[in-house]
Amino acid sequence: MEQRMLDVAVYRFANSGSTTGHDQLVVEEPLEIRLEYGPREARTRKSISITMRTPGDDFALAAGFLFSEQIVRHPAHILRIRFCGPPVGPRHLRNTVRVELDPAAEIAIERLERHFYTTSSCGVCGKTSIEALQLSDCPPLPSTGPHIPATTIHQLPEHLRAAQEVFESTGGLHAAALVTPAGQIELLREDVGRHNAVDKLIGTRLLAGSLQLNQHLLFVSGRASFELTQKAVVAGIPILAAVGAPSSLAVALAEAHGLTLIGFVRDHRFNVYTCPWRVLPHTHTL
Amino acid sequence: MEQRMLDVAVYRFANSGSTTGHDQLVVEEPLEIRLEYGPREARTRKSISITMRTPGDDFALAAGFLFSEQIVRHPAHILRIRFCGPPVGPRHLRNTVRVELDPAAEIAIERLERHFYTTSSCGVCGKTSIEALQLSDCPPLPSTGPHIPATTIHQLPEHLRAAQEVFESTGGLHAAALVTPAGQIELLREDVGRHNAVDKLIGTRLLAGSLQLNQHLLFVSGRASFELTQKAVVAGIPILAAVGAPSSLAVALAEAHGLTLIGFVRDHRFNVYTCPWRVLPHTHTL
Repeated sequence: MEQRMLDVAVYRFANSGSTTGHDQLVVEEPLEIRLEYGPREARTRKSISITMRTPGDDFALAAGFLFSEQIVRHPAHILRIRFCGPPVGPRHLRNTVRVELDPAAEIAIERLERHFYTTSSCGVCGKTSIEALQLSDCPPLPSTGPHIPATTIHQLPEHLRAAQEVFESTGGLHAAALVTPAGQIELLREDVGRHNAVDKLIGTRLLAGSLQLNQHLLFVSGRASFELTQKAVVAGIPILAAVGAPSSLAVALAEAHGLTLIGFVRDHRFNVYTCPWRVLPHTHTL
Repeated sequence: MEQRMLDVAVYRFANSGSTTGHDQLVVEEPLEIRLEYGPREARTRKSISITMRTPGDDFALAAGFLFSEQIVRHPAHILRIRFCGPPVGPRHLRNTVRVELDPAAEIAIERLERHFYTTSSCGVCGKTSIEALQLSDCPPLPSTGPHIPATTIHQLPEHLRAAQEVFESTGGLHAAALVTPAGQIELLREDVGRHNAVDKLIGTRLLAGSLQLNQHLLFVSGRASFELTQKAVVAGIPILAAVGAPSSLAVALAEAHGLTLIGFVRDHRFNVYTCPWRVLPHTHTL
């Protein structure tokens, strides 16, 4: 259980002001699945998948993935599953499993050769989760701003709802918005995949030749995962605010790159997990 | 706009009974991104990504993806983006884009060689979305049951909340549960990735040698995407119920395989999109 949650310091903002406190984050770490298969005298070893997961039940995750992908069709075809490689990071996590298949088993090897869906990537394959945090050649995030008033952040959900075209009718779309320091939604994109909504935003600006986003805030309707945080860092956007919860790896990545990560932006409350200096507190009226 | 939503027939269940009606689904379709790069006299063409997306802004999505992945660093490196291949399916969708890069551009080719994160896959690469729906060798879903009372489905959210260990404290986890026809949660798994939660469920049963799930219901805390529906079909689970909305491709896949797909299971209401005969209506008391 304990490896699934992480206690972090947090700045809580509400209409009445801000306080410091603690929050429980869900742990997000990469799991690499390696396969060993083929005849006894000539075994093949191959890394077939990396997924961002919450640690726990990792052998079941690997087995379930292989079955869902129709690579393994029968329980008896799995000889053994074990962790391999040394424990990584300060919490000694095991982030690589090897699945050994029965030499006699007929498995759908051709399925290993085809493409998998991709969501995003960070080159974590074969690295520790800490190494994965080192994005190369990202633009440095500005150390002098922007400064966004807490009241502006409180208004984001309302502004997003007003701007969204499709969500109200289907309930099935994620939204991502580029927001100016004054709180205006400058660009909004919606997609069934939240990473796509962010890629569409960034791509629209890229194709317009105006990828100067170091005074902007990125607001997303879902949770703040590692991959969304990565996209903000790579695009040089200094503030990421999410309606939902951040993951542990999102917070670690934001910390490493000096990005302001804000979660649970709803009901006139929000939490700031990293670099709170970019958020201007409420002016208290006594 | 119209290509982003799809109107479907739906059976609406509430405490007071059930009615037929219509619902707007968000469209989910695969987008394949192909890259053309290298010196003018020896161009390389390579398929680098397939993502499940909502059609619209596809060129921006491709450009944003390449930038987020740090394959393309500057707008000027993109010479042209265009759709390629014929329109597919009854709605004539363009699901493949080719991005042509400047021959003089230095791009991070080595990033094309590394692994991408994988979430799930169905072999859609180079196929139409309709072909992608043809999963091979899946166990046939039972044509005689199970039959689940509507009142049992109304109670699922409450049972899930009672069973969840971590969600309440972090708000960051997706849950997936195997439910018996009597409405009992038999197995529950939570993960930061909803596809992982389902893989953990299925893998747990696979490793226990008890993958006989053709009388079960799979209940998930988020939306019903194509990939979750695919996992249910491959595992032979005849009913998928979700707290959130289904996508268009999830409904099409459910229809093709005879799976009962239920969405918006909350506040004592739900919608049935396919194979409603597995849901027993309320007994009306006059």
